[in-house]
Amino acid sequence: KRTRDYGIKLGVLPTGQNNAITDVPGVRVGHVTIRQGTTIRTGVTAILPHTGNLFQQKSPAAIYIGNGFGKLTGYSQIDELGTLETPIVLTNTLSVPTAADAVIDYTLSQKGNEEVRSVNTVVGETNDGFLNDIRGRHVTKQHVLEAIRAAKTGPVEEGNVGAGTGTVCFGFKGGIGTASRKLPTSLGGYTVGALVQTNFGGVLQIGGVPVGVALGKYSFKEKLDGSCMMVILTDAPLDARNLKRLAKRAFMGLAQTGGIASNGSGDYVIAVSTAYQIPHETTNSFDEMKLLRNDNVSPLFMAAIEATEEAIINSLFAAQTMSGDQGHQIEQLPVDKVVELLKKAGQVR
Amino acid sequence: KRTRDYGIKLGVLPTGQNNAITDVPGVRVGHVTIRQGTTIRTGVTAILPHTGNLFQQKSPAAIYIGNGFGKLTGYSQIDELGTLETPIVLTNTLSVPTAADAVIDYTLSQKGNEEVRSVNTVVGETNDGFLNDIRGRHVTKQHVLEAIRAAKTGPVEEGNVGAGTGTVCFGFKGGIGTASRKLPTSLGGYTVGALVQTNFGGVLQIGGVPVGVALGKYSFKEKLDGSCMMVILTDAPLDARNLKRLAKRAFMGLAQTGGIASNGSGDYVIAVSTAYQIPHETTNSFDEMKLLRNDNVSPLFMAAIEATEEAIINSLFAAQTMSGDQGHQIEQLPVDKVVELLKKAGQVR
Amino acid sequence: KRTRDYGIKLGVLPTGQNNAITDVPGVRVGHVTIRQGTTIRTGVTAILPHTGNLFQQKSPAAIYIGNGFGKLTGYSQIDELGTLETPIVLTNTLSVPTAADAVIDYTLSQKGNEEVRSVNTVVGETNDGFLNDIRGRHVTKQHVLEAIRAAKTGPVEEGNVGAGTGTVCFGFKGGIGTASRKLPTSLGGYTVGALVQTNFGGVLQIGGVPVGVALGKYSFKEKLDGSCMMVILTDAPLDARNLKRLAKRAFMGLAQTGGIASNGSGDYVIAVSTAYQIPHETTNSFDEMKLLRNDNVSPLFMAAIEATEEAIINSLFAAQTMSGDQGHQIEQLPVDKVVELLKKAGQVR
Amino acid sequence: KRTRDYGIKLGVLPTGQNNAITDVPGVRVGHVTIRQGTTIRTGVTAILPHTGNLFQQKSPAAIYIGNGFGKLTGYSQIDELGTLETPIVLTNTLSVPTAADAVIDYTLSQKGNEEVRSVNTVVGETNDGFLNDIRGRHVTKQHVLEAIRAAKTGPVEEGNVGAGTGTVCFGFKGGIGTASRKLPTSLGGYTVGALVQTNFGGVLQIGGVPVGVALGKYSFKEKLDGSCMMVILTDAPLDARNLKRLAKRAFMGLAQTGGIASNGSGDYVIAVSTAYQIPHETTNSFDEMKLLRNDNVSPLFMAAIEATEEAIINSLFAAQTMSGDQGHQIEQLPVDKVVELLKKAGQVR
Repeated sequence: KRTRDYGIKLGVLPTGQNNAITDVPGVRVGHVTIRQGTTIRTGVTAILPHTGNLFQQKSPAAIYIGNGFGKLTGYSQIDELGTLETPIVLTNTLSVPTAADAVIDYTLSQKGNEEVRSVNTVVGETNDGFLNDIRGRHVTKQHVLEAIRAAKTGPVEEGNVGAGTGTVCFGFKGGIGTASRKLPTSLGGYTVGALVQTNFGGVLQIGGVPVGVALGKYSFKEKLDGSCMMVILTDAPLDARNLKRLAKRAFMGLAQTGGIASNGSGDYVIAVSTAYQIPHETTNSFDEMKLLRNDNVSPLFMAAIEATEEAIINSLFAAQTMSGDQGHQIEQLPVDKVVELLKKAGQVR
Repeated sequence: KRTRDYGIKLGVLPTGQNNAITDVPGVRVGHVTIRQGTTIRTGVTAILPHTGNLFQQKSPAAIYIGNGFGKLTGYSQIDELGTLETPIVLTNTLSVPTAADAVIDYTLSQKGNEEVRSVNTVVGETNDGFLNDIRGRHVTKQHVLEAIRAAKTGPVEEGNVGAGTGTVCFGFKGGIGTASRKLPTSLGGYTVGALVQTNFGGVLQIGGVPVGVALGKYSFKEKLDGSCMMVILTDAPLDARNLKRLAKRAFMGLAQTGGIASNGSGDYVIAVSTAYQIPHETTNSFDEMKLLRNDNVSPLFMAAIEATEEAIINSLFAAQTMSGDQGHQIEQLPVDKVVELLKKAGQVR
Repeated sequence: KRTRDYGIKLGVLPTGQNNAITDVPGVRVGHVTIRQGTTIRTGVTAILPHTGNLFQQKSPAAIYIGNGFGKLTGYSQIDELGTLETPIVLTNTLSVPTAADAVIDYTLSQKGNEEVRSVNTVVGETNDGFLNDIRGRHVTKQHVLEAIRAAKTGPVEEGNVGAGTGTVCFGFKGGIGTASRKLPTSLGGYTVGALVQTNFGGVLQIGGVPVGVALGKYSFKEKLDGSCMMVILTDAPLDARNLKRLAKRAFMGLAQTGGIASNGSGDYVIAVSTAYQIPHETTNSFDEMKLLRNDNVSPLFMAAIEATEEAIINSLFAAQTMSGDQGHQIEQLPVDKVVELLKKAGQVR
Repeated sequence: KRTRDYGIKLGVLPTGQNNAITDVPGVRVGHVTIRQGTTIRTGVTAILPHTGNLFQQKSPAAIYIGNGFGKLTGYSQIDELGTLETPIVLTNTLSVPTAADAVIDYTLSQKGNEEVRSVNTVVGETNDGFLNDIRGRHVTKQHVLEAIRAAKTGPVEEGNVGAGTGTVCFGFKGGIGTASRKLPTSLGGYTVGALVQTNFGGVLQIGGVPVGVALGKYSFKEKLDGSCMMVILTDAPLDARNLKRLAKRAFMGLAQTGGIASNGSGDYVIAVSTAYQIPHETTNSFDEMKLLRNDNVSPLFMAAIEATEEAIINSLFAAQTMSGDQGHQIEQLPVDKVVELLKKAGQVR
């Protein structure tokens, strides 16, 4: 059961069909979960913005850095050129190079890319080293290629899967979460989807209810640290400048859940539009575009905040208690107790 | 009565003595409220980080831009050099040049500044043009100099005062608000104070309770737009880099209240440390500093989030219904109803 | 006589008709020179990108900050929204607020702007306080409005005029300079124009000849400091992202002249496209644009470097010896000697 | 023979002992050159700021992005935290992940790093795909570890070595270059060293002489594109903020050589101070620092410009004609002809 299935409604905008990042047409997500023995708890999640050749048909994109203690690849080229040319891959901190190398493999081997000699990979991570033997670097290129191949539309698995297999959030088991918002036609009718890999701390708050305090688990009462990777997709026609602004709003969604972006946090948002593509090569000297005006982006901002907030909470509702490396164990969010708290607060409808 | 006087407690950290930005030792705030006839509803608020010559003894400082649709002066020099050399002044959008000119007057005329030929003013604004005849530009240099002169320590007046006289927030009357947090000794014992000029929209949320929804007043149900100026002071010894990170957390506090940083928003945070000063001139080639390590800044981050959130809510609790230009009227937050809602949600203690 | 009139050819690209920023169709420049008694040596220069209502028809624009020790207004809004909505005005450091106030006057009073309540002025400066009684703030709003009114197409006066009246560059008299480049049709046929206000130091180099060394006048041999304002106009269809990249290349042009962007330098580049405008209000939800592809911007980059380099040298060739405040006097560049040096180096053709 | 050995003197400041980045005490450089058969022309260059455990004793550092079309790893964490914790490694574009993985290997295996679970690698690249079979990814982790191990003080090999083995610059064979400046005692006595991997285009200019034009080889006459990695080391006590400013000046040095930072360029500068280290862990809550004041950094700026300019020219003087992949061949700079040109221009002393 997801958060909404309990009658908990976050925000005021309606969700997309599956309340998932894949509600944005064409977007696909693939997970590979790596869980072996008592110490390996990690994985890979891949997000693909469209079904064509991602390198030849680049997607408008931007990256916002909330707190930069992380190893995301690909930042500067996206900032300079405004386009994404590969799948987005999430994994653990020390497996970023392996994943980046696999994304190069993938790109070089795509039909039509025979002459490609430069690939800007976008690989994000959070550190699952509390439950996972991260120093063992158990992610292989095959895992990454498999996650890309496995990418599909429709509902997205949440919790202890893919890159969220071994993560910890607000002191509870974190993981992968997703959500979406679909604007009413009067506001443009666009869809904004979020997918998160939650591994951070703060003072958990759900629908405004200070759950972390009630459960006695919050930053500086305990040591809670870590990171959050956020991916935002939308079918609204935005260029890189407005996508960067949209990405920043996802970070505001993280704030809404009580995240504090502590010193050791690697909080990044990658925002991508599926509304058009920029061809790698063309005889046309120009890119012709029909972009949403600045005046009309605010509803998308609100949608990104809400979708990110709910994706984070969804990751907590879906994740399950896990033990791992060095005998460490992390409990899942006590969902029943949380639902009880929200009921008392009038937040279950 | 302020928010806390109703038993509403935001966040988990203790406040400073007056729950005000002036809890940071040496910090002073001055207001000039300009309210004339039926159309003039504006003013000036000045914040001074220490009692010495601000130009000769510069304060470490940084500015974070949440959403840049605003006219703040002084950004680039603070970003380049990491220091503040004047009072911080807040006013209305079209009176920024007047205020900046007054700050130059102030600086040139200070004893010891006889040879000063360059002044980096820091004047922020929000747009009070709904209630105020903003095109009339009724703020004079005298008003600004008076606000600087009036600056004092101790409790800070909130609501319809100074630069908050004519502002609107979440569809209700906004204004000036302040709050502070004092870290326990185990976390360093530092104080973080916030002062805000609230003039923005979103979906108001107080202590997690979706008050905006309950009152039927939120963005895209109605047209709510605008800006928020945030000023953060601390006695923690931070340099410009960590002050910029601290400033970003104030923006997360804005997110906590349900602010969405819409397209038309000018959301800026100015963060200043009072722990040390950088002399304008000295025979010493070096600045000798003892700075808090990166590892120790996270509690300050949480303090900045909480203080900003509470300062915003305080501005709403203090502001009163006001009519102004063109017959416009803005109602104050229905505090009794809000307290009732928070009681039901278990948020009144 | 301008630099080229001596047979000195900088760079490899051809110039526009007047070798001036006004070679970009529609661009106008106006100067007001304020020279009174023995101590007042200052002025105002205004640049207007098109002849319509600048607020209602905004121009795509970006600002690059080379070194941020300056007081330029308007940075954050241009960075956020990607558009310029006023004339660009240059003046002295302490007169920025007066000039900004005048630009608000100008904007509010334009026909069609009766409801405008927010104006993002773009006022840049360098510090002419060595020759000018800068603390006296002798620029009035009338001077600024006059410079805007005086703006015209065609050749642009250089040297000791407008905002360049009292500036100093590489230890010689600086001032206003301008230049342009027109790309061959095969590279798009676009024009790039530069206008500079030169007031900085380093090791002067003209067409690669180390003139500063030959003349025994360069940084750290003498104390040379200061700033350079650079304005770039182009008719190439670029959005804010590529305009920011173009702006950065102007800073590379400054480097080509031997400028070092010292600590006290306020080096800013404002880049604007005249190829299209973004309406302030419209019933259309979209901006439809036909933008030059990333792949095609490099020739514009080279044009911006060359035009800026030549504009700076032009300012030095045009400026004349001036005495001013406190009995200070600054000699003009010894043009004959310089031409001699360049002849020996084979740089006069 | 290096550039200076021909009597060509760039800039006005004196060099360090070896005119190399290793003139900064403690700095070491290691190369591995990979040249096999007719198609493999690549390699690895490693720069180590000090001889201790780089992770446990972090170095103050900053990165400036000139043009972001590149794959440098490690940007955001250095920007956030201000410290470098690994060797800096340069290689080819598609081998960045392999090199990053090797740097993780290196770091995890260092004595004292047994508990390290997060490593921020800094791997830069340029694209040697014209001469090198870059798609073959012939760099192995062993190559990278070997380059780190091989790092030594003293003179640095230039030209077709290490990461410069297959690069092309201004249409001639590029490669690795280095240079340094030592400030006179009156300006602080500090050393600034530069090391570059040159692979870019523009209009080559040496000591101000437009060599590229004279040789008929320059951008848009021919297709010249590409990137430049620049590394700056100094023993001046700077923090990350001033190191970022210093890094920007290296990019000005690139401009001095006639580089234009074309669209496809990945131009990055990594600047590091050896004056102090920040311990990874300590019982002290504070970092105590004695930093050079803003007022005193300008001579370092000039030193960085000059050292980078000369390092680039040195790479061209040292590189030799090379044939490689697909039968491509790139000629070396015709040094005799260039020296002749400079003699005529009076630039050989």
